[in-house]
Amino acid sequence: MAPVRGFFYPRTPTGRAALVPPPPWHYSGDLLTVEYRTDPAKVAALLPAPLLPAEQDPGAVALIWADWQSCSADGRQLLDPVLAQYKECFAVVRCRFEGRTYSRCVYIWVDKDFAIARGIHQGYPKKLGSIHQTRPHPHGPAPRLAPGARFGATLAAADRRLAEAVLTLEEQSDTGGFVNGHPMAHHRWLPGIAKDAPDTVAELISSGAAAFEGGPIWRGSAELRLFPSPVEELAELTVEEPIGAYYQQIGVVWDGGTVLTPRA
Amino acid sequence: MAPVRGFFYPRTPTGRAALVPPPPWHYSGDLLTVEYRTDPAKVAALLPAPLLPAEQDPGAVALIWADWQSCSADGRQLLDPVLAQYKECFAVVRCRFEGRTYSRCVYIWVDKDFAIARGIHQGYPKKLGSIHQTRPHPHGPAPRLAPGARFGATLAAADRRLAEAVLTLEEQSDTGGFVNGHPMAHHRWLPGIAKDAPDTVAELISSGAAAFEGGPIWRGSAELRLFPSPVEELAELTVEEPIGAYYQQIGVVWDGGTVLTPRA
Amino acid sequence: MAPVRGFFYPRTPTGRAALVPPPPWHYSGDLLTVEYRTDPAKVAALLPAPLLPAEQDPGAVALIWADWQSCSADGRQLLDPVLAQYKECFAVVRCRFEGRTYSRCVYIWVDKDFAIARGIHQGYPKKLGSIHQTRPHPHGPAPRLAPGARFGATLAAADRRLAEAVLTLEEQSDTGGFVNGHPMAHHRWLPGIAKDAPDTVAELISSGAAAFEGGPIWRGSAELRLFPSPVEELAELTVEEPIGAYYQQIGVVWDGGTVLTPRA
Amino acid sequence: MAPVRGFFYPRTPTGRAALVPPPPWHYSGDLLTVEYRTDPAKVAALLPAPLLPAEQDPGAVALIWADWQSCSADGRQLLDPVLAQYKECFAVVRCRFEGRTYSRCVYIWVDKDFAIARGIHQGYPKKLGSIHQTRPHPHGPAPRLAPGARFGATLAAADRRLAEAVLTLEEQSDTGGFVNGHPMAHHRWLPGIAKDAPDTVAELISSGAAAFEGGPIWRGSAELRLFPSPVEELAELTVEEPIGAYYQQIGVVWDGGTVLTPRA
Repeated sequence: MAPVRGFFYPRTPTGRAALVPPPPWHYSGDLLTVEYRTDPAKVAALLPAPLLPAEQDPGAVALIWADWQSCSADGRQLLDPVLAQYKECFAVVRCRFEGRTYSRCVYIWVDKDFAIARGIHQGYPKKLGSIHQTRPHPHGPAPRLAPGARFGATLAAADRRLAEAVLTLEEQSDTGGFVNGHPMAHHRWLPGIAKDAPDTVAELISSGAAAFEGGPIWRGSAELRLFPSPVEELAELTVEEPIGAYYQQIGVVWDGGTVLTPRA
Repeated sequence: MAPVRGFFYPRTPTGRAALVPPPPWHYSGDLLTVEYRTDPAKVAALLPAPLLPAEQDPGAVALIWADWQSCSADGRQLLDPVLAQYKECFAVVRCRFEGRTYSRCVYIWVDKDFAIARGIHQGYPKKLGSIHQTRPHPHGPAPRLAPGARFGATLAAADRRLAEAVLTLEEQSDTGGFVNGHPMAHHRWLPGIAKDAPDTVAELISSGAAAFEGGPIWRGSAELRLFPSPVEELAELTVEEPIGAYYQQIGVVWDGGTVLTPRA
Repeated sequence: MAPVRGFFYPRTPTGRAALVPPPPWHYSGDLLTVEYRTDPAKVAALLPAPLLPAEQDPGAVALIWADWQSCSADGRQLLDPVLAQYKECFAVVRCRFEGRTYSRCVYIWVDKDFAIARGIHQGYPKKLGSIHQTRPHPHGPAPRLAPGARFGATLAAADRRLAEAVLTLEEQSDTGGFVNGHPMAHHRWLPGIAKDAPDTVAELISSGAAAFEGGPIWRGSAELRLFPSPVEELAELTVEEPIGAYYQQIGVVWDGGTVLTPRA
Repeated sequence: MAPVRGFFYPRTPTGRAALVPPPPWHYSGDLLTVEYRTDPAKVAALLPAPLLPAEQDPGAVALIWADWQSCSADGRQLLDPVLAQYKECFAVVRCRFEGRTYSRCVYIWVDKDFAIARGIHQGYPKKLGSIHQTRPHPHGPAPRLAPGARFGATLAAADRRLAEAVLTLEEQSDTGGFVNGHPMAHHRWLPGIAKDAPDTVAELISSGAAAFEGGPIWRGSAELRLFPSPVEELAELTVEEPIGAYYQQIGVVWDGGTVLTPRA
């Protein structure tokens, strides 16, 4: 029978219809990061074995908005930008595995299907959401990247607002925060197809950027509000203490990861 | 460390945020089915080993539109219907495995994230699309389920129309078509996380309805048009000869499947 | 020069591109109505001169969800249903003008552009929203139209949930409520194009159904919750006392209205 | 009775719920312009009396994509950017009235309700669409504003793609095209509410930017394709000869217009 091709479904003789092309995946985007401390027990409760809480500042959380244009190595999606542009908002905590510190995305919402598919591959727990963030612009009322500029960011899913932030830039900074700065440690889970069967996949993997470039990092202060929903738990990560807030324009390449343990 | 719960990601201490609840999944919906013959070689080209073409009528295709309300066993999503309602359009062919005939979904588009997640579990190659189908209604200009009634159905993805059909009902029928009438044989594929690694999962599974109820089946005639897209291959399944067209209102339960072969 | 045609913009030589065709407009749909009393002063505050509050029960409000298929006289939009289907949620109060009682829509959200355009014509203050309501279905978990059946209904706009209701059917009824039962008295306002100029149009008009057919009316009880938003005032119409709740499937024709006073 | 306030509906005691605030309206955005010549008769056919075709180059058309952030004078929408951000694609031709040359938008699609409402005020014939354009970015695969950079732009409405362009930048330019460079001459039409009544408003108005700032104008070459739709006429403006293509980042203020003739 025929071989079929395609990195992600559907797989066909040509692979042309595949929802995502094979890595490397290239990204241009703006990151708006708000870091804060919540009750460390709430972070720990989201870390399944064999993960352990981070040793330092185990209640630290980063809620990050990103406005992306992404593409395969040949860049073709950029010229049909409905296939390249998406936005996301995600919550990151830290954890430890075999003595090393990792970042871990515990919640994430995106607004395109190809982003969901990449998330399933990478172990990001993606849902669809409606994500907005103010874009810097050189003219008119939108903010420049300069002291005092203010950026809004919002997240909704299933017709409910889940989070909103306003970031005021203060000055350039050497750091963009520490919570999302490690390799990611993610579970890739696929439930067994038979009723009540164990997971077919329960793999702990790690991945990070294969290449990175970035402009100046701006540091500032943020107001952040989280709202409850009957079908979400983001608001359980209550804001107990602000840490910092950051804005940066970046380019990044993702090109695969490694298995930490095939059955976590 | 904490156990985490949830049938599909995200997994949390409560499982409340999971994108889909554990099966059984219950559905109410309307199915509009258009069956036709394409070149059998085009169907065969979509069947990876160990699948073989169907022995009878190997070029038969069903393009099916469905307008669903779905929920978990307790039905709670029905009362917040943004969590229950979705539409889909999918192309089904038949195949053979170990001497038995199966149906197989080769392309499918849905309009909600929970439907994408269920598809990943069940081996449906889901993308997001914009799907519309005329609904029967007892009053005003919308059609009744009666001879001569006409129903339109359309599919778009990534801002391009991919398919449109108009079905005219003729009479009640004992059958609703044969292409989608077998248990499904689907591959569950998850690429390996390492660059160029083999698939972590390449499992051939089977599943079907755990329970089914339906109203009268209406048979009719349909006009069907498929449109090309640079990122889709549905239009390759060219309409060479009409077979039949059907409309039915149904209730169905899905409650898991079985592994046909763990490494296909 | 050329004549141009089209009921609503754009106007072209053929009129084919017009966003809405000329009336009559035909509708099939399901109405879910929740009636309650708010502070009469809050209703009165939404009634500009020359309108007066209703003499009886001046604080009565109906919040109505509707799931529509609509078309022009030839019904062509029904076969390309993205052009026919839309949902809406609207708040109705009553008022008096020249001794007669009218209904008046004070807020309304719809999910299609053609519905916005018709609203501008008819004096409905339409915005875009995300509207969902449970649909009755003869099979599976969705409710039948029968005692005890429960229907959910939700409204969101600008990524915030504004209202949600759950209606439990009790019995068939002779009436479907009284708040939306009168001809509508609406202002058609178009601001002057010059800065700070008076309105170019400030016309008080009346319209209602040119034809109506309906199935059984179901009466029941409802829970209704309204949520605040910085850019909405629906929640100001606080629920002080429930009146009733209703469900009905209807067909309706709209075919123009009359000017009550050209400069209100 | 109560005064009600609000520039556009709904009007309430506070005006807070109004879909658009009063002008001035401030905009930051990126404009991607493709100019070409079509058959002058096709342009003339879109110009109702008393407008006349332009004397020079009467078949010139500009198809313009714009990616906007807009706000009222206090800028508050920028911090809840779902209320500020929108995209549009519009077709502009030129015409003559009382010896002066004007630009005129003949078709336009936007993706937010507040943009539709502003269009009704300004005489833009707005529909909803899905609009995408590549954004320049300083890092990663997205293009810089530099020679050789390529930008894609697409338009869809009612689930059909209507236009797509790819612009390749060549060099900085003194001009950004001539078709959209004049004050706009637009009809504001509101049909009479009574069946078959004459228009209540058929006003010819003019407006333009109250203030403008812009970055460098980039000139380049473009491929442009228009696609037919049963409910659109954009593709009738066939591309007979390319003129030029431009990219510019701008800031603009709109603050009202003037009536050219109250009954055109």
